[in-house]
Amino acid sequence: MLTNNLRQAPDARRACTSMEKLLYPKRIAVLGATERVGAPAGIAFRNLLDAGWRGNIFPVHPSAETVFGVPAFRKLADLPVPVDCVVIGLAADKVVSAIDEAADAGIGAAVVLASGFAELGSGGRKRQAELVAAAERAGMAVCGPNCLGLINVGARIPLYAADNWASAPKGRLALLSHSGSGAITLSATGRLGFSHVVSSGNSAVCDLAEYLEFLADDEQTGAAALFLETIRDPAAFERAMEAMHKAGKPVVCLRIGRSSAGAAASAAHTGTLVGSNDAFDAFFRRTGVIAVDDMDELIEASCLVTGLKVRAPGNGVGLINCSGGEVAHACDIAETIGLSFPPLAETTTRELATVLPAFATPGNPLDVTGAVFADRTMYPAALKAFAGDPSVGFLAVVQDAPAGLSEEGATSYRRIAEDVAEFARSTPELPVAFISNLSGTMHPHVRQPLDEAGVPVLTGTRAALKAVLNVVSGGRPVAAPEGLSARPRLSTQPEWIMRLKTGRPFSEHEAKAFLRDHGIPTTREILATSEDECTAAAAKLGYPVVLKIASEDLPHKTEVGGVALHLTSEAEVRDAFGRIMASIGKHAPKARIDGILVQEMIGDSIEAIVGLARHHPFGLAVVVGSGGIMVELLRDAALGLPPLSDHDARGLVERTRLATLLDGFRGAAPADRKALETILTAVSDIALAYGEWIEALDLNPVAVLQNGQGACVLDALIVPVGQRR
Amino acid sequence: MLTNNLRQAPDARRACTSMEKLLYPKRIAVLGATERVGAPAGIAFRNLLDAGWRGNIFPVHPSAETVFGVPAFRKLADLPVPVDCVVIGLAADKVVSAIDEAADAGIGAAVVLASGFAELGSGGRKRQAELVAAAERAGMAVCGPNCLGLINVGARIPLYAADNWASAPKGRLALLSHSGSGAITLSATGRLGFSHVVSSGNSAVCDLAEYLEFLADDEQTGAAALFLETIRDPAAFERAMEAMHKAGKPVVCLRIGRSSAGAAASAAHTGTLVGSNDAFDAFFRRTGVIAVDDMDELIEASCLVTGLKVRAPGNGVGLINCSGGEVAHACDIAETIGLSFPPLAETTTRELATVLPAFATPGNPLDVTGAVFADRTMYPAALKAFAGDPSVGFLAVVQDAPAGLSEEGATSYRRIAEDVAEFARSTPELPVAFISNLSGTMHPHVRQPLDEAGVPVLTGTRAALKAVLNVVSGGRPVAAPEGLSARPRLSTQPEWIMRLKTGRPFSEHEAKAFLRDHGIPTTREILATSEDECTAAAAKLGYPVVLKIASEDLPHKTEVGGVALHLTSEAEVRDAFGRIMASIGKHAPKARIDGILVQEMIGDSIEAIVGLARHHPFGLAVVVGSGGIMVELLRDAALGLPPLSDHDARGLVERTRLATLLDGFRGAAPADRKALETILTAVSDIALAYGEWIEALDLNPVAVLQNGQGACVLDALIVPVGQRR
Repeated sequence: MLTNNLRQAPDARRACTSMEKLLYPKRIAVLGATERVGAPAGIAFRNLLDAGWRGNIFPVHPSAETVFGVPAFRKLADLPVPVDCVVIGLAADKVVSAIDEAADAGIGAAVVLASGFAELGSGGRKRQAELVAAAERAGMAVCGPNCLGLINVGARIPLYAADNWASAPKGRLALLSHSGSGAITLSATGRLGFSHVVSSGNSAVCDLAEYLEFLADDEQTGAAALFLETIRDPAAFERAMEAMHKAGKPVVCLRIGRSSAGAAASAAHTGTLVGSNDAFDAFFRRTGVIAVDDMDELIEASCLVTGLKVRAPGNGVGLINCSGGEVAHACDIAETIGLSFPPLAETTTRELATVLPAFATPGNPLDVTGAVFADRTMYPAALKAFAGDPSVGFLAVVQDAPAGLSEEGATSYRRIAEDVAEFARSTPELPVAFISNLSGTMHPHVRQPLDEAGVPVLTGTRAALKAVLNVVSGGRPVAAPEGLSARPRLSTQPEWIMRLKTGRPFSEHEAKAFLRDHGIPTTREILATSEDECTAAAAKLGYPVVLKIASEDLPHKTEVGGVALHLTSEAEVRDAFGRIMASIGKHAPKARIDGILVQEMIGDSIEAIVGLARHHPFGLAVVVGSGGIMVELLRDAALGLPPLSDHDARGLVERTRLATLLDGFRGAAPADRKALETILTAVSDIALAYGEWIEALDLNPVAVLQNGQGACVLDALIVPVGQRR
Repeated sequence: MLTNNLRQAPDARRACTSMEKLLYPKRIAVLGATERVGAPAGIAFRNLLDAGWRGNIFPVHPSAETVFGVPAFRKLADLPVPVDCVVIGLAADKVVSAIDEAADAGIGAAVVLASGFAELGSGGRKRQAELVAAAERAGMAVCGPNCLGLINVGARIPLYAADNWASAPKGRLALLSHSGSGAITLSATGRLGFSHVVSSGNSAVCDLAEYLEFLADDEQTGAAALFLETIRDPAAFERAMEAMHKAGKPVVCLRIGRSSAGAAASAAHTGTLVGSNDAFDAFFRRTGVIAVDDMDELIEASCLVTGLKVRAPGNGVGLINCSGGEVAHACDIAETIGLSFPPLAETTTRELATVLPAFATPGNPLDVTGAVFADRTMYPAALKAFAGDPSVGFLAVVQDAPAGLSEEGATSYRRIAEDVAEFARSTPELPVAFISNLSGTMHPHVRQPLDEAGVPVLTGTRAALKAVLNVVSGGRPVAAPEGLSARPRLSTQPEWIMRLKTGRPFSEHEAKAFLRDHGIPTTREILATSEDECTAAAAKLGYPVVLKIASEDLPHKTEVGGVALHLTSEAEVRDAFGRIMASIGKHAPKARIDGILVQEMIGDSIEAIVGLARHHPFGLAVVVGSGGIMVELLRDAALGLPPLSDHDARGLVERTRLATLLDGFRGAAPADRKALETILTAVSDIALAYGEWIEALDLNPVAVLQNGQGACVLDALIVPVGQRR
């Protein structure tokens, strides 16, 4: 199924109508509940007992009279009262019939703990498909299989097969994890408090998107952290993100498995220039996911988004510290991650100068100097000055307070923490975070006033500053594509659909005709079948011209001597014709030849490459980059997901080095960047309209002429879906 | 002073003959000792009392009878016994005379706490110079000024003006920090144990290099961690590193202030291509410093180097974990930092297959799967299999055990820790580290068996894997430059020294003569002063030729229309001559013209740039990169410090993208990379021989011809020291 047009994907929604019964069950059955040590269903049952669910939990066991003292039932049909959710602790081969049985008993949700499904390969995939079918028949929400289950931390409902459910403190963050060990680890750091913890395993029925969409309306949840392996259904994920944004709930996401993802296999050039990571990045940017790179960053970003009482308004970051060395350290890392600190207004600098000792240098970042330890009025005054600066919209206070200090040794840092806490209370409109350079460590004596005032405490300069950068600049969906609605949807032309459906390769000539038919300028050209036709065509197009062999069998024309450039006269055309035919005869004697393409020769220009490449699970993605030799040497390319607005296209070009060249590098005249961007949006429109039938598309090179003179496709390759070579 | 020839710098050694008295004093005076709260000398005095030094410490105070109950003396001359070291707690303006007084009293070492020296600017710099002179006169080792002092942790001697000296646990690491807050923070993490902690402040007399050289022979010290702002004396630092390597003591270094360092100012092109960071990187690589990027990395790398009982033999890293998600996470980060995992031998894979469950995939990294929790024989067997693999020289066990787990919840992880501890005991020849994905957190119940077995516990995937990478691949000095000693030292030519000393700019013609005189090939060329001379020169050189205006006033010839390329006939030469003269007349009417340079036109080649640029504190550095338009677009350049061996030159080119082009990119014939490398070593020789008089040198472009055909400088710029433009 193609998911290019994410905003309109029609039927990707899963049968998760009963999510409420999964996350907020009132009565719970445990199928396979047992007292046997280590049995998952036994652990889950005991967890529920520990959480005080006696009376509302029902063990189901074929023979036992009681489980942990609770009377057991033989089968789900025997239960005396309606039950919302069943934890299925049976082996994989018994799960599908158990789902059917649960459906018959009117149970709306299930947690399937067993492994032995898709993770095993083809046999397991078949079993998983049966599980999905059974759940969809019943309209049942299912967590798993191959998972630990979930914990409604706020309501103390552990449908959870690990013995550390109580390690997850209560809070406002929903943790959704494909990985079970990810759920265990991240829920027990002591740094984060949770509304829900979900280990969704194979996510056969309900994936993270479905949980997310439900949690957008969940009163306990203020933000979500995802430990994600892949996105199965981009359209559903995008809808869920829209719901989360509407509810003002940020989503932080660590995608794992990036290294093995590799580049997408593609018949076209552009497919090798970018990898799946680029497609995920583009998707996260578009949907306003705060994407992070490791578990530390996930924790710090989650701390920050759940801890902030006001949204950072996208303004600049002020940074304050009492040590020159530590300010330098923070600046070094800020530069690496792309976080900059705006200069302060002159009034702020002047105010700071009156407050700080003479040897201090007022500025941002600010080293208030060790003098603050002697004069306690100094830190509050510096904070106040920053708060009044128009360019500071977020205040980062960097202060180490390692856990190994004695309480006495930590006293002077506690004073700073108290000043910051007091400042946060009196200045609620300015978001503030307190940051330790050392990961995972903050002296409890120093933490205390900050925790009491609700100031987020972050640790580890790198992860903390990345969290700040993300919160200030990211975490918002890219604005509704400007001009996108105004642009009419490209209407498909039946004859081109027919042509694509043949699966036959496109010749250059044919590919260019397709492009022109959809508003993309190409070189003017004439297909000639003899030397005389060539010279006639050249005369008609005007010199200089280019000759190229035209053959579906020869997509790489240069390699077989099939191209002659810069032909300025009839004699040169005749000469080139002879050379090309001789070379083809020698290098590709069996190729079917359509003729010789005579093209106008485009003068001085900057060469770009534009293409469509397929990136699972997103379908066709638009790629733009430097053309010519730079394509492979620089791998200078940026990827965007259709639909692309004019604004998106501009941003895409901006992310390449090509942009530097186009803007008139080293005194050259600027090139027609707008014309290139127009080609990008046109290619995006083609992806949306013809995505079902196009496997890949390569415009390489695209000549970008001087500003005002447009851009023009010099060569093109279209690979239909299912093309045989 | 020039420090290019680091290995032979003659007089950089400071007067630190009394280091023993600074780090191991037996009797200590405290000048300015007081009971006043917050006074640095008072804190230092009290710290010494707390450490049990009563009887061997002597407060000196102008009026007090006792300080904290210890009888005080009026002045140093009054002390009843010889004293090794004095802590000077006086204000800045009294320090120099105190040093003199201490010298008179036969005291060999001093700690100067006061600020008010070079950090204040020119006035302070003068005072600091006086301090240095006084110390050098007396041959006295001085810590500071503007510092917290130092702690000999092993011997419990805190000459230290902060009240948290006891937070530094005893151990084998020497922490040397320019920054006081860096010393406080890093000594109190609870993760590291110390032999010495030094806050060296302005390091006016003894810099980190001097401490390091002393510590190479210090029995308490097994490794050093530097929190460094700059290197004042590269030669001294290199000597200290040699001593540390000889003693088998690794050095980890975090240099701060990288972001503000910026690019070196330079008149030449290459100076802007690389920044000071590149020079420091090259220096650290050469001297075998383990350079890290933030405080977390400093901690993890220090943990690892102090914790390992065997040196990692530079072999591959095996990684083992029990969760697919966490293995993926580790792989993602490993790829980012450039750590790869070698494939296992077939015998290892087969052994693992017999040990692990059927659904596990034997390999490296290895996911042993959650089955290890049910079968306790599995983990030890997997460890054993890795230990037997010939390509695994270091074992990284990744296992999260977050601090928030209950002791019961941590039990299964503790079992893994126990297995790893047992393995480490029985396999002492294989270095092993235990790594948590989460920074700063490891459940104490899980840590315990590891600590007992001496297995280093690292936290934070990124910092931990970087530490592993550094220990496996770095931390050794670059091998003694092969072929360097064989190459005769370039002998300077008096006439060129004279010429350079004039400070006058070099014309292209003159610069090329200099190069040819020192073995670097350039284009053949003739300086002509008339149209007829031009045509005669062209005939002599052979067509095609290039014409270039020759003028010291016009270093940028293209911009003023002073260059004509591809001239293939006498007519074209005459035409070009006219055009150039007209253009110069228009654009640079006042320029003094030497004539027109007629050069052979070099055919197909790859353009490189080679240069010398000055980078404080290292002097001239060799830079190589892509030439032509790529210079500025790619900023593709690598920097090396003279002397460069052939091996160094090869490595330098390898670090550029230029290498890809030279090796025959996209089917092109390979270029003469060796010839380019020969130019690099020749330029390095020039830097060593003429470094005193050359500010910068630019060979741009250098044409690298097809393999076997050499390389050739097309244009050159030499900027003498002190050149006026």
